Amino acid sequence: MTHNLYHDAINWEQLRREHPIGDDFVQFAKQSRDELRAHQEKLFLRCVARAWEIPFYQRLWGNAGIQPGDIKGLETLPDLPVFDKSDIMASIDQNPPFGDFGGLEGGANGRPPVIMHTTSGTTGNPQVLLFGAKSREVQDLMLGRIYQFQGMRPDDIVHSVYGHGMINGGHYVREAVTHWTNAIFMSAGTGIETRSAKQVELMRDFGTTVIVGFADYIKKLARVAVEMGIDPVKDLNIRMISGHLGREDKSSLSEAWGGVECFDWYGVGDTGIIAGEGPDRDGLYVMEDGQIVEVCDIDTGKPVPDGQPGDIICTCIHKDDVYPIIRFNTHDVTKVVTGTSSLGINFKRIEGFLGRSDNMVKIRGINIFPQAMGPLLEADSSFAGDFICKAVRDDQGRDEFVVCAEVNGARDAATVDRYKAILKKSIGIDCGVELAAPGDLAPLTQTEVRQKPIRLIDERFK
Amino acid sequence: MTHNLYHDAINWEQLRREHPIGDDFVQFAKQSRDELRAHQEKLFLRCVARAWEIPFYQRLWGNAGIQPGDIKGLETLPDLPVFDKSDIMASIDQNPPFGDFGGLEGGANGRPPVIMHTTSGTTGNPQVLLFGAKSREVQDLMLGRIYQFQGMRPDDIVHSVYGHGMINGGHYVREAVTHWTNAIFMSAGTGIETRSAKQVELMRDFGTTVIVGFADYIKKLARVAVEMGIDPVKDLNIRMISGHLGREDKSSLSEAWGGVECFDWYGVGDTGIIAGEGPDRDGLYVMEDGQIVEVCDIDTGKPVPDGQPGDIICTCIHKDDVYPIIRFNTHDVTKVVTGTSSLGINFKRIEGFLGRSDNMVKIRGINIFPQAMGPLLEADSSFAGDFICKAVRDDQGRDEFVVCAEVNGARDAATVDRYKAILKKSIGIDCGVELAAPGDLAPLTQTEVRQKPIRLIDERFK
Repeated sequence: MTHNLYHDAINWEQLRREHPIGDDFVQFAKQSRDELRAHQEKLFLRCVARAWEIPFYQRLWGNAGIQPGDIKGLETLPDLPVFDKSDIMASIDQNPPFGDFGGLEGGANGRPPVIMHTTSGTTGNPQVLLFGAKSREVQDLMLGRIYQFQGMRPDDIVHSVYGHGMINGGHYVREAVTHWTNAIFMSAGTGIETRSAKQVELMRDFGTTVIVGFADYIKKLARVAVEMGIDPVKDLNIRMISGHLGREDKSSLSEAWGGVECFDWYGVGDTGIIAGEGPDRDGLYVMEDGQIVEVCDIDTGKPVPDGQPGDIICTCIHKDDVYPIIRFNTHDVTKVVTGTSSLGINFKRIEGFLGRSDNMVKIRGINIFPQAMGPLLEADSSFAGDFICKAVRDDQGRDEFVVCAEVNGARDAATVDRYKAILKKSIGIDCGVELAAPGDLAPLTQTEVRQKPIRLIDERFK
Repeated sequence: MTHNLYHDAINWEQLRREHPIGDDFVQFAKQSRDELRAHQEKLFLRCVARAWEIPFYQRLWGNAGIQPGDIKGLETLPDLPVFDKSDIMASIDQNPPFGDFGGLEGGANGRPPVIMHTTSGTTGNPQVLLFGAKSREVQDLMLGRIYQFQGMRPDDIVHSVYGHGMINGGHYVREAVTHWTNAIFMSAGTGIETRSAKQVELMRDFGTTVIVGFADYIKKLARVAVEMGIDPVKDLNIRMISGHLGREDKSSLSEAWGGVECFDWYGVGDTGIIAGEGPDRDGLYVMEDGQIVEVCDIDTGKPVPDGQPGDIICTCIHKDDVYPIIRFNTHDVTKVVTGTSSLGINFKRIEGFLGRSDNMVKIRGINIFPQAMGPLLEADSSFAGDFICKAVRDDQGRDEFVVCAEVNGARDAATVDRYKAILKKSIGIDCGVELAAPGDLAPLTQTEVRQKPIRLIDERFK
């Protein structure tokens, strides 16, 4: 009975050298772009060699007329074809149940250790996620490293509201904190796994200092605490929140928890963390020792200039064991941050998640990301946090964009006008506004049960 | 920024030597009792040394007049005081939030890495569970080892119905399979985390070969499959089930899944796996390289002869980092299996979980474990699986024990009489029997939402 055990599959010394953590990370991230490039080249070529062993890439690259000798290094990267979730789903359809992108067939030593999860199916059917032992630990390390960089300390008590079950999130974050930060981790999970009131009690009883998860639910927990007669600031001990925040999300989230520091990070299920804010909170540093990000035009696929929005195309140069990822189109939109880091860090920075290009709606020629509407409305103090957008088409074929928002206080014409003004100023077109009482939109947005609430109802093609 | 990282806290080579896996485990378990004893002595003294550093043990042992030099080795073990959950809860009350039993204060190197969970609160308030990196991995290894010994292979697809969130179960089992078996693990979780119908679809779509979890819910999944028009035998590919089964539970569980092999294992949250069946299915082998089991009289606390029921007192000789466990009374009842193992294995065997001594009811001088009633009723083909017991007291102060059972088909006097006969034969006293239709008892037993259903309503002291 021989086994390729998880720990045996990892060369821990090499992993730590290639992906430093703590102070070593900060030094590493200050090295010159040339030094970084040399590091990336080495890891990239290792991934390419692994990918050529895998039917999915033999097909993807073969169909594009690419021969093994053609990929010289990172200079060739922009010439390689991209793939996305639809290619992964097609691979699974043709080779159920795991597709042929994982490299699970194994060589002389049998199948490598595999961690499997599925996506939550936010956009369609759940998708299989596959990780190898070493690449999994690198992803864990990179997230643990960002938490530390943001200020998480070994003496922190970290409360996680990421869900478990088949989805990756909660398990991933648990591993990151447990294996790489030495903080104590509380895997509370979603409100379905641990009731919201119970979560607040746990935070009080165990002296939670950090909350990690999705902003919407973390905001909700502050409201639940108030309803329970527990002051989120005086009675609890939170000093840091790290999760997935829009740029404008942060102030209201921070305020709900008494002005705590809030940090953003970005990643998708397949890749693990791609980028995260540092203590300067001036863009998200791409984890360039493990991930290469290209920002490409949504329609043409060509690279856009820094500062322009485009799809995030990710290459995971740390993922050379199971399911190599070379030019994966996340369909998440961001911009590259221009200028230099005040911390002297030379890693590329992005603005974080600006919306999904496949959820983006075009209204009279303007691209609108529904997720971005809530953060805009935070500018008005009456906004209660939950919202949903509708795209509608009238009898004349004219498209309208309507934002339905929960508000505290009067749902009157003056409020509607204020909200319309905010939206017009940011988006550039007139939008409809409908107001609702706090809690009324929950059946539509499903904030209670979904980690990523529904933000768009597209009624144009009914 | 220095950290006591999880992996750094483990001497992997030593861990593997002290706790073998695979073929090495089988050889190790065939060694003489003297050789095993020498191994245990070494590990036990390490735990004792660690325990003396911890206030909880300083108090527990100090109050019993024990001095550091008094504990010579395992010969002294039966003379040490036991503790149980109530002592842990008292320690937490006095030293919130983590109590003073963990050894979290740390030495010169700061706090050791800690994994924290809570119990589900089956019997009262949730209790904090604390694990160190090394002892956690040993518990993972011992469970992975038992799965392999029972027949789990690296090419298996393992579907887990253990819950996640704050509780330990799902996380523990995930680590065990992922780190130590190389099978692919699907962390479906409870029916709340992944709907039961979805779970059946996952098993079909991913070709699940092994199911792990609590027997009641695994049985339910077979029923759900049938309701969906999916034949649990022909349409699914299950060849093994491993979980927590009464001795009599197995045949009905196996039958529901087309005669697959079912294996039992036993452990509690604090300790990890204590014992598990091997391929001989002739008692549960105590993992004696990591755990020492004493079976002691429920009332006097004195050791009982092999073959007699008593409380399981567990000493975790592998747990010398965080929360050492020396003579923990689980209040779970078992018997030591007499005779020799047909596999030539010299590890002690127990019968597995026979009931909880603190849930045990005394009816007219007879000890009854409500959990054991369902397995007895499996002898009658009409029994539909779910049941609950009531202890009632009449006006004259006479106690009655009533078993309410779900049955398929007629709920008539003849069936009641058959059930009464089964119970009388096993328990030795006349019991009341009430019959219900399938599904009717779920609101009382909470089979749908609790991993350990409610089996007793004690109405005597109302």
